[in-house]
Amino acid sequence: MKQPVTVLGLGAMGAALARAFLDAGHPTTIWNRTPGRAPELDQLGAVRADSVGQAVAASPLVVVCLLVDATVHQALDGVDVRGRTIVNLTNGTPEQARATAERFAGARYLDGGIMAVPEMIGGPAAFIFYSGPEAAFEEHRDALSALARPAYVGADPGLAALYDIALLSAMYGMFGGAEHALALITSERIPASAFTADFLLPWLTAMLGSLPQIADTLDNGAAPGAAGSNLAMQAAAYDNLIDAALAQGVDPMLLRPMGDLMKRAVAEGHGDEDSAVTVRLLSSAS
Amino acid sequence: MKQPVTVLGLGAMGAALARAFLDAGHPTTIWNRTPGRAPELDQLGAVRADSVGQAVAASPLVVVCLLVDATVHQALDGVDVRGRTIVNLTNGTPEQARATAERFAGARYLDGGIMAVPEMIGGPAAFIFYSGPEAAFEEHRDALSALARPAYVGADPGLAALYDIALLSAMYGMFGGAEHALALITSERIPASAFTADFLLPWLTAMLGSLPQIADTLDNGAAPGAAGSNLAMQAAAYDNLIDAALAQGVDPMLLRPMGDLMKRAVAEGHGDEDSAVTVRLLSSAS
Ligand SMILES: NC(=O)c1ccc[n+]([C@@H]2O[C@H](COP(=O)([O-])OP(=O)(O)OC[C@H]3O[C@@H](n4cnc5c(N)ncnc54)[C@H](OP(=O)(O)O)[C@@H]3O)[C@@H](O)[C@H]2O)c1
Ligand SMILES: NC(=O)c1ccc[n+]([C@@H]2O[C@H](COP(=O)([O-])OP(=O)(O)OC[C@H]3O[C@@H](n4cnc5c(N)ncnc54)[C@H](OP(=O)(O)O)[C@@H]3O)[C@@H](O)[C@H]2O)c1
Repeated sequence: MKQPVTVLGLGAMGAALARAFLDAGHPTTIWNRTPGRAPELDQLGAVRADSVGQAVAASPLVVVCLLVDATVHQALDGVDVRGRTIVNLTNGTPEQARATAERFAGARYLDGGIMAVPEMIGGPAAFIFYSGPEAAFEEHRDALSALARPAYVGADPGLAALYDIALLSAMYGMFGGAEHALALITSERIPASAFTADFLLPWLTAMLGSLPQIADTLDNGAAPGAAGSNLAMQAAAYDNLIDAALAQGVDPMLLRPMGDLMKRAVAEGHGDEDSAVTVRLLSSAS
Repeated sequence: MKQPVTVLGLGAMGAALARAFLDAGHPTTIWNRTPGRAPELDQLGAVRADSVGQAVAASPLVVVCLLVDATVHQALDGVDVRGRTIVNLTNGTPEQARATAERFAGARYLDGGIMAVPEMIGGPAAFIFYSGPEAAFEEHRDALSALARPAYVGADPGLAALYDIALLSAMYGMFGGAEHALALITSERIPASAFTADFLLPWLTAMLGSLPQIADTLDNGAAPGAAGSNLAMQAAAYDNLIDAALAQGVDPMLLRPMGDLMKRAVAEGHGDEDSAVTVRLLSSAS
């Protein structure tokens, strides 16, 4: 028999996690603050617990997927977690993860970051970062693999959240840029779907190819020779992005800070370098 | 014999364009404000003109790739362009393109937007938007195909710039997010290259898959049913992105506006919808 598991939280993501455990044949106990959420799980054989305490007692492996860190503490306040492995997949900061690990010192605590939307859970492109005691991760690696490809990133419980938040930050940058682009295009009543398929996706896919070079510059310093896309040229063209948005009635709020950052880089004498320098300007905030 | 062409401007991009014409066998006349730039073009058979006027007179097709719109007007002030086809690939706004088309009313004027970095010119992933009189585009389509795949988007000379700027906006959003992510990761001395190859590129590639759904919502309205990633949840998690950046000494300047936008969407009652609503909020700036 497969290992029994418990899932706390049946929002869009928690329900997807429970479904993946059930699909993989794990006896699955579920709990949610508002009773009766995700009714489709009942048909799949999930067992609904009446209380968090009962749900935690039911399985050695307890996966938590609630709204925010404060929700986790509220929901688990006073519950006996001794002898359990708590895997907290609620989004949070590295600092929250470290504090929550302390709070659950009686249990074995793994923190995680889900790199997927609910529809991707159980599919090939989803992955989940884990950090915390490696032995606990190894013991439950098989069960956790039912959810998504696991990526263990270290013993410091805060590391999974750091990787998670780095990728979410990158995603929101990309979404913000794409949303601005779609606002511009639809301002001229050009269909968004054709623009996305014909131009936006191929272009962003091609531009992803620039990221390894930026990363390499950060690791190893700039390659010799002139930049193919120097920051002075980019900063000059950037004004056109803001002006065009305003002329089309699109709020350039998502784009403005990058223009400020490039201008600062040029003003500080980096006009002939490439984008890697902006990473360094962001990092010197401390 | 292939059609003679002229290239004005031998910066990183203009030099790449001239090289592509030469590689494709076009007799190519070149001009640059500062003489002697891109010396490698001389070996490839390029003919250097002593003045802009001479360069324009040399070929029926004149490709312009200077820094900004004002540079184009400065460089071509007083030059006789009658009977030429001017293809202006200098970055600019739709309004600038329309004004420049008026300015060159004596010539046939095509405006363009290059979707490539110089290294991509002549390669399979590069494309260039064109707008202006379709007959002029068709007449020069073959020659222009030496540079990159041509995408003709309409007779209004401003359209190429609109498409161009929409894609550049999307790119800068993506780069900004990725640069923030790299700042976070390198703040813990994690190597940027391994993070990029193992996690950043696969994640952003997977997340690109969400864009067609956002576009479809814009074209056809929201699909029935609950959002898999609702804005209330996203806005709650977004605070973690800002807090984590500050704790790591990374300036969250590039990320803040998206948080403000999501909070506004939630405050206006869209907490149970998905990201498409933020496009509409950006568009209502007018
Ligand atoms: N959806 C995604 O795309 C996605 C992707 C990666 C990570 N995540 C993370 O996964 C977690 C869950 O997201 P989701 O999409 O499932 O959100 P959701 O659909 O909004 O569900 C929120 C869940 O939190 C529970 N909850 C909220 N406040 C509570 C409280 N005070 N006490 C107990 N339970 C409470 C809700 O219970 P009720 O039913 O009683 O309200 C529900 O189970 C979040 O941390 C999110 O950042 C989500
Ligand atoms: N590089 C890219 O990745 C890329 C991608 C797409 C589009 N573009 C666009 O292509 C255009 C050229 O970019 P680039 O990368 O080649 O820039 P660049 O390397 O900085 O070159 C700038 C060019 O403009 C000329 N110039 C500047 N001020 C001038 C003036 N007052 N009079 C005459 N010429 C002047 C320069 O001549 P001097 O040699 O005399 O200074 C040089 O030829 C820009 O509009 C840019 O936005 C570039």
